[in-house]
Amino acid sequence: MTAAIDLLSRIRIVLVATSHPGNVGAAARAMFTMGLTRLVLVSPRRFPDPEAVALATGATSVLDGATVLGTLDEAIAGCALAIGLSARPREFAGRVLAMRDAAMEAVVTAPHGDIAFVFGSEMSGLSNAELARCALVATIPANPDYASLNLAAAVQVVAYELRVAATGGDVWRAPRFAPATADEIEALFANGERTLIAMRILNPEMPKKLLPRLRRLFARAGLEKEEVNILRGIVARIDQLIARREP
Amino acid sequence: MTAAIDLLSRIRIVLVATSHPGNVGAAARAMFTMGLTRLVLVSPRRFPDPEAVALATGATSVLDGATVLGTLDEAIAGCALAIGLSARPREFAGRVLAMRDAAMEAVVTAPHGDIAFVFGSEMSGLSNAELARCALVATIPANPDYASLNLAAAVQVVAYELRVAATGGDVWRAPRFAPATADEIEALFANGERTLIAMRILNPEMPKKLLPRLRRLFARAGLEKEEVNILRGIVARIDQLIARREP
Repeated sequence: MTAAIDLLSRIRIVLVATSHPGNVGAAARAMFTMGLTRLVLVSPRRFPDPEAVALATGATSVLDGATVLGTLDEAIAGCALAIGLSARPREFAGRVLAMRDAAMEAVVTAPHGDIAFVFGSEMSGLSNAELARCALVATIPANPDYASLNLAAAVQVVAYELRVAATGGDVWRAPRFAPATADEIEALFANGERTLIAMRILNPEMPKKLLPRLRRLFARAGLEKEEVNILRGIVARIDQLIARREP
Repeated sequence: MTAAIDLLSRIRIVLVATSHPGNVGAAARAMFTMGLTRLVLVSPRRFPDPEAVALATGATSVLDGATVLGTLDEAIAGCALAIGLSARPREFAGRVLAMRDAAMEAVVTAPHGDIAFVFGSEMSGLSNAELARCALVATIPANPDYASLNLAAAVQVVAYELRVAATGGDVWRAPRFAPATADEIEALFANGERTLIAMRILNPEMPKKLLPRLRRLFARAGLEKEEVNILRGIVARIDQLIARREP
């Protein structure tokens, strides 16, 4: 995990010529949710700005630490790799990768230095001249009829892919309680089978697929000790009901 | 590609109890960028609303087609699978998947009917009771210290993963021009080697790794016919310069 976090600390998110400070704040929030912290702004129209702070919510530390520079060259100086985002095809693009592959490229290059992901302005994206400064073009798969992701939304997808590439996409797991043992499960099925026969749901002369299907259902769920107890309680109660009716 | 688009048309995005119409608009835009169109709103505080339209930009058709319902049960009625999003661990969650795996689950279930992805309110997410209505919990890998994605940003990541799962993540490709033939490339290297020797950059008695490294560089790039012509022009010009100096 330490190596993964080191890798995320190598990433610079570079926003060129943003118009709306709200987008800068939302981009900072998007970065921080994925563990990215290094924001570089090239000639923003308005920054700092209270609208950026409002949209950053809990990620104002990213805004506070942002670097403001005058040119893209300064923003990517010293980077081992600069990757420009572009939604639309460019005639002179060298190497173009889908964002997922670009994230893997970032992972393998990070040991050699910083990696910049470069985003153009809200209205027109990166110019061809700006994109030519980037060794690689990354693109986010999108609806060909409407590929216009909001700037912060694009940063969210990029940051998300970087986190998954860096950490393997660890998430919280469903809580696990004590699993039932094989013999507890077999006792439940044995008891259940007798009861199903008594209920006339299962015909032992023509059992069809009923028991295999029930086994499959519970196998998929993965029975816990407590659940086997609940189910045996239900079966026992049915047995009582049948016994009462019969005499 | 048709099958993939059919699959995306099976997806309902269900937003429960949204507070801010701007988020609904931004979520509609996020959906449409990935080719999703079916938005279901459960008890939104304000809808329709001009702020939603403003933030939807080119995706107002998604807002126009949105269904507004009173309960989550109505919203997921008839679905083959309802998947609830949750950033934080829940004690009674059954099956929890990272969003990428949840998207694959949606792909394999879609032939059986609609799939709902259910999002809770901006402030508190889905309640335990709402999450219990969902057969599966999906979670977006995030910074454990700040996992608070904006609602529309979360919709963007979910829609993006669904698009990649459905279509394989097709993107635009770098333009390809006529590639150089093997003999054109060999002629360039033969000429280049002679010139490097004449320039005293390459010592034929001790060639080291210079030529293999140059070959590797151009092999990675994948030389085009036009590029070989440019390079041969440069080599020829160097030959002229050397010839002029020598007498």
